[in-house]
Amino acid sequence: MEKPAPVAYPIEQLLQRRWSPRAFAPKPVEREVLLRLFEAARWAPSSYNEQSWRYIVVTQKNPEQLKEAQSVLSSGNAWATKAPVLICSVAQLAFARSDKPNRHAFHDVGAASENLLLQATALGLFGHQMAGFDVEKARVVFQVPEGYEPVAMMALGYPAELESLTEEQRAHEERPRARRPIQDFVFDGRFGNPIGHSKALDSTAQGGGA
Amino acid sequence: MEKPAPVAYPIEQLLQRRWSPRAFAPKPVEREVLLRLFEAARWAPSSYNEQSWRYIVVTQKNPEQLKEAQSVLSSGNAWATKAPVLICSVAQLAFARSDKPNRHAFHDVGAASENLLLQATALGLFGHQMAGFDVEKARVVFQVPEGYEPVAMMALGYPAELESLTEEQRAHEERPRARRPIQDFVFDGRFGNPIGHSKALDSTAQGGGA
Repeated sequence: MEKPAPVAYPIEQLLQRRWSPRAFAPKPVEREVLLRLFEAARWAPSSYNEQSWRYIVVTQKNPEQLKEAQSVLSSGNAWATKAPVLICSVAQLAFARSDKPNRHAFHDVGAASENLLLQATALGLFGHQMAGFDVEKARVVFQVPEGYEPVAMMALGYPAELESLTEEQRAHEERPRARRPIQDFVFDGRFGNPIGHSKALDSTAQGGGA
Repeated sequence: MEKPAPVAYPIEQLLQRRWSPRAFAPKPVEREVLLRLFEAARWAPSSYNEQSWRYIVVTQKNPEQLKEAQSVLSSGNAWATKAPVLICSVAQLAFARSDKPNRHAFHDVGAASENLLLQATALGLFGHQMAGFDVEKARVVFQVPEGYEPVAMMALGYPAELESLTEEQRAHEERPRARRPIQDFVFDGRFGNPIGHSKALDSTAQGGGA
């Protein structure tokens, strides 16, 4: 199943196709594919090139470990136990160079994970990140040391047909994709100043006023 | 100038070409182009679909406002005053639904901004995010209300030749792009467990042992 975003302005099809599904096929994800996903994450930009992102990968090759990884998920994310790969993203909280807090630690993990998801989309896979998990349990299960923090869990794999889902999950899956309109989150010069009345976003090619 | 990432594994050329340059042409960025960049940001994934990202855009169409926006940058980012567009990304810190802190507020801004940068790359522009700016000053200049926080400044525009830079900036620009190797940030099952000895990343197609 694909579910391209109903865009208001044309964007790259890779960005448009990225999506967070709940139906994963049991098909394993090849080592070479995983390496390409992490290579994509690797080239994300970061504050002072600190690359605050870390990833812990668990696959169906190690069923016990996968079960343990599944145990950190909240019950609403039961669909994710079908995914052949679970990934825990982790942030390094301080700058390696100065030991001072890196206020972009989570921000840069977000950028790297988005790269990973887009590369997955390009290779016919999908990833679905989850905020719903037990952070402290993840810290124990994945042995995350002090100075680092579990950020998000990600289910990853090849897509499956909707038939593999429960009825409730399927209903969720078939809901239209929705986002705020641009004028709700893009402002002209000052917070809250709508771009509808925008100087900043006026056409730069000013013609005959039409 | 282009500076594609020296990748260890093949990735999408869009991800490979994204880069944070310092040399921007004075050429204005068209309204339609800006809208496409924000449309790309719009479709990033977010925790509970909260879309914690906000963007304040300042362009050369409003030189006074642009000067004010430039004044929040730290002196090391003087190159950014050449860019025809400055954008301040902002995070909504709490969930709209519950008013509880959203621990992924910055994370999700990072994902949306990465989408924006990738769409810019696709359209022949480049964006360069900066952590080096005065957050409190930005809060005043852009009138960011309580509950929201300025996250990053971004210079945006079409690329220029290196000749437009100072010698020091040019040297910076010509340095090779560098990242940690994958084995430094991707772990097998447990934090710190290198994927070099990985079960998780073993080839799923196990042949004759070679």
